Amino acid sequence: MAKNDVKIPKATLKRLPLYYRFVSTLHNSGVDRVSSKELSEGLKIDSATIRRDFSYFGELGKKGYGYNISYLLKFFRTTLEQDDMTKVAIVGVGNLGTALVNYNFTVNDRMQIVAAFDQSESISGSMVGKLTVDSMDDFEKVVEEVGIQVVILTVPQQAAQRVADRITFAGITGILNFTPQRINVPEKVQVHHIDLGIELQSLIFFMKNQ
Amino acid sequence: MAKNDVKIPKATLKRLPLYYRFVSTLHNSGVDRVSSKELSEGLKIDSATIRRDFSYFGELGKKGYGYNISYLLKFFRTTLEQDDMTKVAIVGVGNLGTALVNYNFTVNDRMQIVAAFDQSESISGSMVGKLTVDSMDDFEKVVEEVGIQVVILTVPQQAAQRVADRITFAGITGILNFTPQRINVPEKVQVHHIDLGIELQSLIFFMKNQ
Repeated sequence: MAKNDVKIPKATLKRLPLYYRFVSTLHNSGVDRVSSKELSEGLKIDSATIRRDFSYFGELGKKGYGYNISYLLKFFRTTLEQDDMTKVAIVGVGNLGTALVNYNFTVNDRMQIVAAFDQSESISGSMVGKLTVDSMDDFEKVVEEVGIQVVILTVPQQAAQRVADRITFAGITGILNFTPQRINVPEKVQVHHIDLGIELQSLIFFMKNQ
Repeated sequence: MAKNDVKIPKATLKRLPLYYRFVSTLHNSGVDRVSSKELSEGLKIDSATIRRDFSYFGELGKKGYGYNISYLLKFFRTTLEQDDMTKVAIVGVGNLGTALVNYNFTVNDRMQIVAAFDQSESISGSMVGKLTVDSMDDFEKVVEEVGIQVVILTVPQQAAQRVADRITFAGITGILNFTPQRINVPEKVQVHHIDLGIELQSLIFFMKNQ
């Protein structure tokens, strides 16, 4: 049972999708319970963190028994999933954008990449994966007609802020920013930033300083 | 001056590359000092966190003046950069691997993508970006000859653990894992995981629950 009166910390919330997917995999393999130790080994998160996280979800675990998979699955599903499908567009169909159009994002079936946009006339109109790339000229029209809520931003760094301004103005409230550029957006817009260069440098730094 | 006797927390260390790049950009623009508020706005990290992080770096900031850019830059450069070049290989040259071979990772000039490998005979031997894709048959030989230390892993999920075993056995000590699969590696190996599906789901979750 969710403790609805308790505010779940942001760090815990960020791990929810991860827990959800792992528990789904166990469920599909016919497993019916899991210990925090097994979760820890499978997810590479220390078991103290897992136990603390799970304490926010209510009384889900029993000592010497572990957590009930069906219960967890139902809990995560209810917490994470919404009734409506979230429609996602990719803006910037270069190498990375093309790879992401073709990437299998299906953590669950409640989100879908439904459109891709590029401002280059040599790219718009072409097929990438199962999508025909739309022109940025049609961005606002397509967003409204199709009901796009999220943009994966894979434009060149120098275009990032300008394009971000345009897509937030069109009503997009979530951006997964793959450019190295930090972007400024209105407060109601959620941005998650995946900076691949920083990730690589950070890895190297930890390798050499562990 | 670095407080060498103080252990810098892992979360702070993870932000170092981000600070470094931002400060470099300011330096290149001719800026000579920066406040924690400006850092906060530029980096989208709250200023309390920035001040706490920077306190670990020694007495770098002055009230009403901010931080000295040249000093910061020198500090980050010394802390982050090593004398030797880190050589990186991409294993798995599908859509995502191809995009990453072509991606401009150059946060600094001390890391370089020097090789790409694929097990498919239809891919190995072909040119991707400036690299000729090597066969996985030659993996161990090339790693040793070229001195590769880091692998960016972009193989299919079901191959991830098997390939990870092989690359760690070949002496690789850092893996940037782009597959949805959590991988088990020897303790001396550092793994950073970028799970794109989880990132997207997490963004959507925060959008709908902010």
